[in-house]
Amino acid sequence: MATGDTIHLAAQTGCALRLARGETLRVISPTGEQVADVAAFAAADPREWLSTGRTVDYAGSIYVGTGSVLYSNRSTALLTITADTAGRHDLLLSPCSAEMFERLYGIEGHHPSCFENLATSLEPLGVAPDAIPTTLNLFMVVTPDPHTGRIDIGRPSSRPGDHVDLRAEVDLLVGVTACSAELTNNGTLKPIDVEILRGGS
Amino acid sequence: MATGDTIHLAAQTGCALRLARGETLRVISPTGEQVADVAAFAAADPREWLSTGRTVDYAGSIYVGTGSVLYSNRSTALLTITADTAGRHDLLLSPCSAEMFERLYGIEGHHPSCFENLATSLEPLGVAPDAIPTTLNLFMVVTPDPHTGRIDIGRPSSRPGDHVDLRAEVDLLVGVTACSAELTNNGTLKPIDVEILRGGS
Repeated sequence: MATGDTIHLAAQTGCALRLARGETLRVISPTGEQVADVAAFAAADPREWLSTGRTVDYAGSIYVGTGSVLYSNRSTALLTITADTAGRHDLLLSPCSAEMFERLYGIEGHHPSCFENLATSLEPLGVAPDAIPTTLNLFMVVTPDPHTGRIDIGRPSSRPGDHVDLRAEVDLLVGVTACSAELTNNGTLKPIDVEILRGGS
Repeated sequence: MATGDTIHLAAQTGCALRLARGETLRVISPTGEQVADVAAFAAADPREWLSTGRTVDYAGSIYVGTGSVLYSNRSTALLTITADTAGRHDLLLSPCSAEMFERLYGIEGHHPSCFENLATSLEPLGVAPDAIPTTLNLFMVVTPDPHTGRIDIGRPSSRPGDHVDLRAEVDLLVGVTACSAELTNNGTLKPIDVEILRGGS
């Protein structure tokens, strides 16, 4: 994809792209109320991956927003959030998968999923499906109860046009989805737009 | 390790072992106030790993205890917690690493870490260091503020002799540590005991 291009992700689809150091990935929720899962890997060695566990530890928080740095399993800064008009995102949950739809919602057989969309998009870039870790789930509102631990999945944080800018701190391979889960996107399936901005936002 | 043996993990050390389906791993905090990080991989294909993100999603909770099932990235049930005398454990944070000690505590140079102990123990069994994901951190008390997202790391939940029993649902490779972080173990470094019980607890 040329810098400056926009990728329109239809509902329940995904893409993968190369993001050079210094470039910014803008992830937009054009209609609002839609989650976008993001996975990232170092282009120089895709065995290095965006680790939500390291990111939570270094942030001292399960939430991230403008100014937050997203770290790899090797403690490298991979991405910095340079803009965030929505304000809430999730670092706790795995991307939805066909098995998740069957187990949690009783949907048997094939159902599109963020996991499948990340896996099929990233595999040609050299990332195996089993290497996809817990994702950064943009616009997803997951709130834990500190006493019981129970999580509440709320309506996505994005209003129409809300976006998050992610600046690459190293050359990256990035996967992005328009989430496939009806129930966690307030009942309807919506698109996501992805832009690469040269030189930051 | 023969079934029935006990491994005594000195403070700031770790081990890896094979756990057959139906066997139970008992992780004991003999002195109390000590965290044990656990990583697990399918013995048949170590590319399948214990996923904290999937486990939180299926549990609907960031906390686990007796009866909880720990799932893989492929949604396979890997382990079931059949006993838990402590009551609180963590699924959010990566194992401590030398980089973490430098970044969060200003300790330069080498510092023993759960990550290093898992990596060196698991590598001979065919698990690469980069494949170590966010761990199940037994006895670790990490409490998020639902409004700000800030996490509070409290005194470990274990009193002397507290233990957790983890029954293998498939053949596994398991790494276990006696955590290396002074500050998150109430100021002192303590051992962990590990036993394999045939036929469950």
